[in-house]
Amino acid sequence: MLCVVTAPTDLTGALAAIGPADAAAMAAARDLQARLTKPLGSLGALEDLPVRMAGLAGRCPPPMPDPATVVVFAGDHGVHAQGVTPWPQDVTAQMVANIASGGAVVNAFARTAGAEVMVVDVGVAAPVTSGPMLVDANVRRGTRDLATEVALTRAEAIAAMEVGVRVAGTLIDGGARCLLTGDMGIANTTPAAALVAAFTGADPAAVTGRGTGIDDTTYARKVAVVAGALRRHAPDATDPLGVLAAVGGLEHAALAGFLLGAAARRIPVVLDGVIAASAALAAAAFAPDVVTAMIAGHRSAEPGATVALAHLGLVPLLDLGMRLGEGSGAVLALPVVAAAIRVLHEVATFDAAGVSRK
Amino acid sequence: MLCVVTAPTDLTGALAAIGPADAAAMAAARDLQARLTKPLGSLGALEDLPVRMAGLAGRCPPPMPDPATVVVFAGDHGVHAQGVTPWPQDVTAQMVANIASGGAVVNAFARTAGAEVMVVDVGVAAPVTSGPMLVDANVRRGTRDLATEVALTRAEAIAAMEVGVRVAGTLIDGGARCLLTGDMGIANTTPAAALVAAFTGADPAAVTGRGTGIDDTTYARKVAVVAGALRRHAPDATDPLGVLAAVGGLEHAALAGFLLGAAARRIPVVLDGVIAASAALAAAAFAPDVVTAMIAGHRSAEPGATVALAHLGLVPLLDLGMRLGEGSGAVLALPVVAAAIRVLHEVATFDAAGVSRK
Repeated sequence: MLCVVTAPTDLTGALAAIGPADAAAMAAARDLQARLTKPLGSLGALEDLPVRMAGLAGRCPPPMPDPATVVVFAGDHGVHAQGVTPWPQDVTAQMVANIASGGAVVNAFARTAGAEVMVVDVGVAAPVTSGPMLVDANVRRGTRDLATEVALTRAEAIAAMEVGVRVAGTLIDGGARCLLTGDMGIANTTPAAALVAAFTGADPAAVTGRGTGIDDTTYARKVAVVAGALRRHAPDATDPLGVLAAVGGLEHAALAGFLLGAAARRIPVVLDGVIAASAALAAAAFAPDVVTAMIAGHRSAEPGATVALAHLGLVPLLDLGMRLGEGSGAVLALPVVAAAIRVLHEVATFDAAGVSRK
Repeated sequence: MLCVVTAPTDLTGALAAIGPADAAAMAAARDLQARLTKPLGSLGALEDLPVRMAGLAGRCPPPMPDPATVVVFAGDHGVHAQGVTPWPQDVTAQMVANIASGGAVVNAFARTAGAEVMVVDVGVAAPVTSGPMLVDANVRRGTRDLATEVALTRAEAIAAMEVGVRVAGTLIDGGARCLLTGDMGIANTTPAAALVAAFTGADPAAVTGRGTGIDDTTYARKVAVVAGALRRHAPDATDPLGVLAAVGGLEHAALAGFLLGAAARRIPVVLDGVIAASAALAAAAFAPDVVTAMIAGHRSAEPGATVALAHLGLVPLLDLGMRLGEGSGAVLALPVVAAAIRVLHEVATFDAAGVSRK
């Protein structure tokens, strides 16, 4: 039988290609862990991580997460008009330019971690100048105001998801063995909170945070906006495209596609904060096995991130009180991910090193 | 006036050279943090870290922590005879050889983090074979049994501290700009627990852990050994040399000297787990300002580490449930330290990047 494996290049192909973890590879990784020169369990959370990655890759040891690229999906939000943030909307495009020229925190972190940075304009309101690190894949110039209408049509939401699938595929074709999520979008924690509430059933107040830092009055308004959007649109968690369209953002939809595209190719994705976690809920509603490819980089200070990660069954690696976005928390976790996987490649066994057991 | 600054090369010189943080450099770092293109406070714990490092270095931005070396101080313990661990004492020398040939977890982590590894035999019971990564500075072949007599004479404790001061100085003279603590010594969590109890006044049961993983019977014996040693020796926290001699270990004393030697040269040291934290308490009892040079790499699963770090006012960067030692948790934190400092070097200001403020 001639078997031609074609890499999925669109959302339909990606959804069809996503499958469960390889139990045999996971068992082999657990067995190897027990033979390495360290007390079993002494690496805590870092013992389970490479086992999960073996299950994703279907081999033990799993490949090193290198080269790695963090993709910053950028978009604007009609809900900005509701006064949910003190930052002007222009800052999205300004920060896209800053990241594309290497001047943001995510760039500094990526240089430490040895990751590449790519920015994808999937929905910025103002035109942004292209550059070597910047991809123009603008679906529309910002979402509609989710407080008063659906943020996106279903077709727009699919188009943004397709951008994410395509970016993941292109990077993996180019050699990437680990992807990381980033985001930039003034007001984007508001749709993220609405997505988390819609997919988990949590109370809006429990998943709405202070984003980049807002006062009590703005916070109360933001909770009211999220709660009002959920009442207006009554999103149905079993219709993830409808949820993304009603209360999501273009970068949230692109990130959901990005996660599905990576999982279809069995490449891990390190999640950043609440934007990524809310997109991960959407992706998991499309294909539950996508979670196999996810690594939670850090616990964002945004409460919705913790609710979403718990819903997905993911435990974050870092917990530093960060709430920046851009992919900063994911990139910061990359060396930890690499170190955990490297153990299975390089640490000697008790037998090989001549070390006695207890 | 001719002013000749000589780098301290011994314990007396190190103690004389240690001074407080530079308040002006810290103020400059705080001011710079506030002008960088990120919401103020959005990096959580990583905003304070480079401010502290600016205070240590006396300049803003503080130097990058590169090159970096993790030093694994190795020693054996007479208290092994009390049955406080199921691992044979031979494992110390076997693991020293494993680390010196690059086969241990700390080596794999160091390759990810870009750190060098050095092993210093300051008190291993069995002769170990020298090698390019291994320094023979053996003070005695293991401590005496702290359950029945003092572990070390005061002269032996000073000799081990001098080893640590000398190693720190040699590495810094060779260009190191960050040091990391490592340790290897079967049974060494028992003296660590005794040191933490002696310096903090905590109850032995609250600071004694299960080390590499021991059963309930062995754990009860270990707590009884620690409590008995404290009753027998009645260590006086205001006499840190006496405490180290009575209930410490050669690697604990060497680490205390290593911390003092680095602080005297105003070079940061990333602490690993409970062995480092107990040594840090000893170092701080000699010179409180030594804490300025300390960064807590991670929260070890050993309860004594948390008690010691709280006493020192240090908040650990990572919390992954690790309890391996070797310096593994310190090395894992190094990229996080580097990323936090790099922000002050490389991230654009709002003005320079043309980004609007809220």
